[in-house]
Amino acid sequence: MMNENALATEKAAERGWQLSPDRCFAADPAQRTIARTLYAVVQDLPLIAPHGHVPPALLADPDARLGTPAELFIIPDHYILRMLYSQGVTMESMGVPTRRDAPVERDHRRIWQRFADHFHLFRATPTGLWLADELVNLFGVEERLTSESAQRIYDHLEAQLARPEFAPRALLDRFGIELLCTTDAATDALDHHRRLHADGLTHIRPTFRPDAVVNLEHPAWRQQINALSAVAGIDVGDYTAYVRALEQRRAAFKALGALATDHAALTPYTARLSKDAADAIFQRGLRGEANAADAATFTAHMLMEFARMSTEDGLVMQIHAGSLRNHNPDIFARFGADMGADIPIATEWTRNLQPLLNAYGNDSRFRLILFTLDESSYSRELAPLAGHYPAVKLGPPWWFYDSVNGMRRYFEQVIETAGLYNTAGFNDDTRAFASIPSRHDVWRRVSCDWLAGLVVQGMLAEDEAAEMAHELAYGLAKAAYGAE
Amino acid sequence: MMNENALATEKAAERGWQLSPDRCFAADPAQRTIARTLYAVVQDLPLIAPHGHVPPALLADPDARLGTPAELFIIPDHYILRMLYSQGVTMESMGVPTRRDAPVERDHRRIWQRFADHFHLFRATPTGLWLADELVNLFGVEERLTSESAQRIYDHLEAQLARPEFAPRALLDRFGIELLCTTDAATDALDHHRRLHADGLTHIRPTFRPDAVVNLEHPAWRQQINALSAVAGIDVGDYTAYVRALEQRRAAFKALGALATDHAALTPYTARLSKDAADAIFQRGLRGEANAADAATFTAHMLMEFARMSTEDGLVMQIHAGSLRNHNPDIFARFGADMGADIPIATEWTRNLQPLLNAYGNDSRFRLILFTLDESSYSRELAPLAGHYPAVKLGPPWWFYDSVNGMRRYFEQVIETAGLYNTAGFNDDTRAFASIPSRHDVWRRVSCDWLAGLVVQGMLAEDEAAEMAHELAYGLAKAAYGAE
Amino acid sequence: MMNENALATEKAAERGWQLSPDRCFAADPAQRTIARTLYAVVQDLPLIAPHGHVPPALLADPDARLGTPAELFIIPDHYILRMLYSQGVTMESMGVPTRRDAPVERDHRRIWQRFADHFHLFRATPTGLWLADELVNLFGVEERLTSESAQRIYDHLEAQLARPEFAPRALLDRFGIELLCTTDAATDALDHHRRLHADGLTHIRPTFRPDAVVNLEHPAWRQQINALSAVAGIDVGDYTAYVRALEQRRAAFKALGALATDHAALTPYTARLSKDAADAIFQRGLRGEANAADAATFTAHMLMEFARMSTEDGLVMQIHAGSLRNHNPDIFARFGADMGADIPIATEWTRNLQPLLNAYGNDSRFRLILFTLDESSYSRELAPLAGHYPAVKLGPPWWFYDSVNGMRRYFEQVIETAGLYNTAGFNDDTRAFASIPSRHDVWRRVSCDWLAGLVVQGMLAEDEAAEMAHELAYGLAKAAYGAE
Repeated sequence: MMNENALATEKAAERGWQLSPDRCFAADPAQRTIARTLYAVVQDLPLIAPHGHVPPALLADPDARLGTPAELFIIPDHYILRMLYSQGVTMESMGVPTRRDAPVERDHRRIWQRFADHFHLFRATPTGLWLADELVNLFGVEERLTSESAQRIYDHLEAQLARPEFAPRALLDRFGIELLCTTDAATDALDHHRRLHADGLTHIRPTFRPDAVVNLEHPAWRQQINALSAVAGIDVGDYTAYVRALEQRRAAFKALGALATDHAALTPYTARLSKDAADAIFQRGLRGEANAADAATFTAHMLMEFARMSTEDGLVMQIHAGSLRNHNPDIFARFGADMGADIPIATEWTRNLQPLLNAYGNDSRFRLILFTLDESSYSRELAPLAGHYPAVKLGPPWWFYDSVNGMRRYFEQVIETAGLYNTAGFNDDTRAFASIPSRHDVWRRVSCDWLAGLVVQGMLAEDEAAEMAHELAYGLAKAAYGAE
Repeated sequence: MMNENALATEKAAERGWQLSPDRCFAADPAQRTIARTLYAVVQDLPLIAPHGHVPPALLADPDARLGTPAELFIIPDHYILRMLYSQGVTMESMGVPTRRDAPVERDHRRIWQRFADHFHLFRATPTGLWLADELVNLFGVEERLTSESAQRIYDHLEAQLARPEFAPRALLDRFGIELLCTTDAATDALDHHRRLHADGLTHIRPTFRPDAVVNLEHPAWRQQINALSAVAGIDVGDYTAYVRALEQRRAAFKALGALATDHAALTPYTARLSKDAADAIFQRGLRGEANAADAATFTAHMLMEFARMSTEDGLVMQIHAGSLRNHNPDIFARFGADMGADIPIATEWTRNLQPLLNAYGNDSRFRLILFTLDESSYSRELAPLAGHYPAVKLGPPWWFYDSVNGMRRYFEQVIETAGLYNTAGFNDDTRAFASIPSRHDVWRRVSCDWLAGLVVQGMLAEDEAAEMAHELAYGLAKAAYGAE
Repeated sequence: MMNENALATEKAAERGWQLSPDRCFAADPAQRTIARTLYAVVQDLPLIAPHGHVPPALLADPDARLGTPAELFIIPDHYILRMLYSQGVTMESMGVPTRRDAPVERDHRRIWQRFADHFHLFRATPTGLWLADELVNLFGVEERLTSESAQRIYDHLEAQLARPEFAPRALLDRFGIELLCTTDAATDALDHHRRLHADGLTHIRPTFRPDAVVNLEHPAWRQQINALSAVAGIDVGDYTAYVRALEQRRAAFKALGALATDHAALTPYTARLSKDAADAIFQRGLRGEANAADAATFTAHMLMEFARMSTEDGLVMQIHAGSLRNHNPDIFARFGADMGADIPIATEWTRNLQPLLNAYGNDSRFRLILFTLDESSYSRELAPLAGHYPAVKLGPPWWFYDSVNGMRRYFEQVIETAGLYNTAGFNDDTRAFASIPSRHDVWRRVSCDWLAGLVVQGMLAEDEAAEMAHELAYGLAKAAYGAE
């Protein structure tokens, strides 16, 4: 004898591909009943997407399309690429362009077939969950993706993608996106955002990400400084001009609606330099003489400076720390960055952030949102910091942890200490535009299930849980980024 | 359709404030049934409170009272203060006295109102759970605390607190406290404890905490050494006299019933110095010339010495490691310590404790109880250490982890390796006297629920679970502190 | 009112000792139903044991027997010894032989009695679960082990052990062992394995473990090099000869069926030396002049070399990192290694393994299986590494984590990122031959329960879960070690 849900799933397996309406909900019937009730209310709330990587060109150009099924689902998605690569599928055979234009698979049907042949690899992964939701609920696929069904499903997807309803701007409405922030280099002239603004799409906003002009170790840093000079119209020849140019760019971003800045760092180490010390390093950088210690010190100082700027211009500061990028130099040399070869490291927050928080953490004008890849710091460091400093909010589970279990661990390890109201709701952090609703849906389901668990365990009243479900799905993200 | 429990909660929300009799129990009906059975037996066992921070004056003076609702619940409670501070409520507006007597809110009704206005911040936190239990079950509050009900509830609490039944000594009996250990400086003359003893309250016992005379970096260390000289009647002019004075104080504590010592350290680093090397550092300390390395080395040495003393006088040694105190210097400068600004750091136990354990860990006269703020060390380091060395017991989840999920993680990560019988039961670690029963109640509920889970999963017989529930609620704590 | 399972358990407690057929399955009835279905299919699959420490002599000699109950269950089992030692039971009183032949308990009935007197210590531990399963399901014990029943059960066990059905070779068949790999020193002449081979027991295979000839700090290293010279027939007088001798031994192991090598290291630090630099350290080692830094550098280099050899001879490379061996020198001095005094340390994988993975991680001929004692690295480092590098698979939860909760944490923290198919199934890692089926049974139960949870939460179809259950119980381990 099986329970209803299991039976439903099994029949779906015979008939086709139908997803359980109760997916991500705990097994217990009492908890599930409450989860359903909570979810029913928040399921269709507008989407707040305050941090992500959707290319603004996709929305700026009214004629842009999502491409072939392989272009949409496989070639640009490092979650997919890394899993197939880990099982011996080459990047070339997935059509990933090489840096030196070596030949790669150009037949998108064959790429799709290869993906379908390996689709079982995504069982019990968040990617598998998102893909199922997109294929079934967005594209109307009705049979499970297998080696056998692959080409029929390709036909179906191709036909769907050709329809005007699947143009990015059409999906923007269909998805109910109320706010979508992109992530843009400090040197970006923001032409796409200007066009979006001109077309009235002011809910698409840029985010100021200056990493490339901060990281002295990056081979292209010198070029980036030139680009910064050009776009800001300021000759960035010394540290003072550099700061002025950054402030100018922030103002330009803000004028196009930016709410926030974003900073990726290997560690969240912060420490203030004197202006002279900062300029000395900056000059070594311009001469190509900066070493690794210079780069680390300069980044630590600039995080302080960006915090100072945020207190002045009100842009929310985000720090994403702990990813060792491009761990596999062979892959990097041939295919470049973002190929699924970034590996996390242990991350210390308590001491590293102390200088920054002592300087700005009590300032009511400042907001700092933290993202970690080291879950051991949730209960040990991040929740206590968010539960004390007025400026600090904790971002949602990031990257590998944007998953059912990642969310559950986050709720269990963070909320008792930080409280719900020191968290920043959800963001999808995705470059895969079409996956946005699926990602928010998992968050909404897992949130409601977590709250239902507290209700059924007598630790929350249902009206409290309902309020919190709304906050998690919608309110917290808006509030954290000042998007009201 | 909702389950019984959820319905009950909802009706309570309409009618008033009633707590689920099944709070903290898992949703599964079979598990819950067993949990109830186990809990019914241990629920009313006497309370063993072998580690905490209740001010002995509160009990020494038969006329002492708990104060206003704001004095009882808010002003001295760093759990409450930090959460409200994190949301922009100033310490001044909560009536926290400043070090320089700057003006702060003196109207306790307004403080209470502010607290009630922010009461939702405590949803899904252990503080919220304790407060609900105290207000409803101890003080008989019948409606939920909201902005609207705040003043009525204040009236009610004020009336209750005026009754003789709410005097601390009356509550001591009502709570069924069989043992209550306070935490007292090595330099404390123990006058309150002498009075308690004289009044026959020999179940209130002091605990010897020498941190202030050990930590050479503390600005007041020199004064503390003077105080130690005075209270011990020994001129503490060199290391030998220092050790003699500490031994004298331990004897004085023991004479008033002390069972244990307590040591807070940033890290559990231990290492023995020669007597000459220890004296050289001590002399630098007396001359105000000790540096940070001296302080760390001296603390590491003194932990060895305190272990040695414990083997001789039988006082149980407790180490609480891993809290970076006073992370926010602005708050510290204005309000002092214990304002909710202590943030944990990663803590290494395996190597740091090795010298101490190699010297004393096999000694049957020695007992060492360890407390951590780094949960990643539960399964990796602490459970294996407790599961090998005869001297080592693992203390209950501490501070931020004195919570439903903190306890669940502890049971799941510790017991399989350490075994139940190498743990030290529960202690409430609180300065909030009136919250003691609520804290023990959460532990008893979560313990019973964990055991019920094992029974229903076929991993424990019910009679075994019943014995273990008794141990967790009562026996282990008594045994670990030698309080039989 | 109790649920069926709890009732069954209780009655068993009255009547005797019967284990729940549903042990290790979650409480929820719907999940349990699916778990049962999945488990029924995999429960009796042949056992794949690709990593363990069964002494080959036990199987090579057709007349070998398992010894007395004390010899079988207590004296050689460091899980048992450490737990009893932690509670004050001396090693001597458990009959553990000392290095200097000091007198120890020789009466095995008294040793058994002592064990029975402390049997409650194993409640809620994996050791308790394995023991119960072995006693009840392998040996047919029918009453619970207590102080009172101890001698009766001893009688029963003694009688059983005397029967031919309990000879190791008989059990090998009865257990359904399809593959059993032992762990053997590089200097082992493999005589036992030669005999096994000659007897047609080719499913018993050696594993090449060279730690003792690699670790320059080991007091016996020089002797080990002599032994290596002797067994390889190569005068190991310099680094080149050393590498040649190792390659010769690997070939000899392979000829007797070896599938893998195994490397225990305190950390997984890897770094290549030049041949000259390696030889310089090797020569210092031969002269007895190598220091700790030499040893660490040499180990780091040799891990690279062993990876290089694996790409050439196809032996799968296993790394077990993070155990600080012999933490308690008193126990080590008196009783030697493997007494339950090895304590884990925090382990860094991302940077430490980068040199090795950059050199060999993309090589399709190379397979590397990683084992950790630092669970915080599961989701942070190991799952992302396994989810990217084609060579990397993640081994099952190791040692302390070979437990119900250890497995649950592993599934929850690893699979979402690594995917199931980048894991290496289960291995029992045991020297306790008779416990092998019990250990695999726990894994199979917990696996099926985890999958059932995903089905009932709508995240997996039942047919997918069934396939994955088979992989977890059987297929993954065979594939990971190339044992098809």
